[in-house]
Amino acid sequence: MRTEGKHVIMDISGCNLDLLNNLTFLKKLLVEAAERANATVLNVAFHHFTPQGVSGVAVISESHLSIHTWPEYGYAALDFYTCGDIDPKAACKFVADSLEASHIQTTVVSRGEKIKGKYLHRVESTSSERNGKELSLLP
Amino acid sequence: MRTEGKHVIMDISGCNLDLLNNLTFLKKLLVEAAERANATVLNVAFHHFTPQGVSGVAVISESHLSIHTWPEYGYAALDFYTCGDIDPKAACKFVADSLEASHIQTTVVSRGEKIKGKYLHRVESTSSERNGKELSLLP
Repeated sequence: MRTEGKHVIMDISGCNLDLLNNLTFLKKLLVEAAERANATVLNVAFHHFTPQGVSGVAVISESHLSIHTWPEYGYAALDFYTCGDIDPKAACKFVADSLEASHIQTTVVSRGEKIKGKYLHRVESTSSERNGKELSLLP
Repeated sequence: MRTEGKHVIMDISGCNLDLLNNLTFLKKLLVEAAERANATVLNVAFHHFTPQGVSGVAVISESHLSIHTWPEYGYAALDFYTCGDIDPKAACKFVADSLEASHIQTTVVSRGEKIKGKYLHRVESTSSERNGKELSLLP
């Protein structure tokens, strides 16, 4: 199996508070996001916190998707890590839109690059957008 | 609950090939790493690939730990994301040592920092070490 992968780290703000606290919705959303990225879901693990908030992870054949939510702040932290030819960015965008995020910050890390016998990662880019409009793109 | 957290991305090379393919060992290792970081494990999801390789995630009260292994290359990709006062770096080091990694590359990302009403992440540092000796530290 190829070691190269893309790991997208995403923080989203201004989300729908009710959706961020709905475990059933979030589990379905993560599975659908994986399917849209043509990834195969192998196992899921979710937890609902008291009084609010959800943590969930889907193990996929190409790595994992995770979500952690803070409904009280309209905030969610996600990471989508996929290997092979799957591009996780579309899945990230789908999740952010479904949660009605007004601000999205994304960093893409390449994983598993073989360099001089070692396997390494590299921060590729960071981008930020508000209501669908790109604010900045780094580097 | 506080939104601030530390997300450590770690790629390790030159690991013990048998351990990287041992699901039972890896599950126990991730749970022990979480406990050493004083995190509470809420749920785990693991999968063993054919012919080899393991993917596993532990959902903890303070976020998640994940591991993906490529025994054929002696390589594993990990991420340890913790919120609140827990520092995931010691847990990362414990896992890398247990898997007998000869090279470790680590990047620390701060998550959930509130800036002007938005929740953001920031790449804090990248470090690299071989056989316990630090090679470089950025920035």
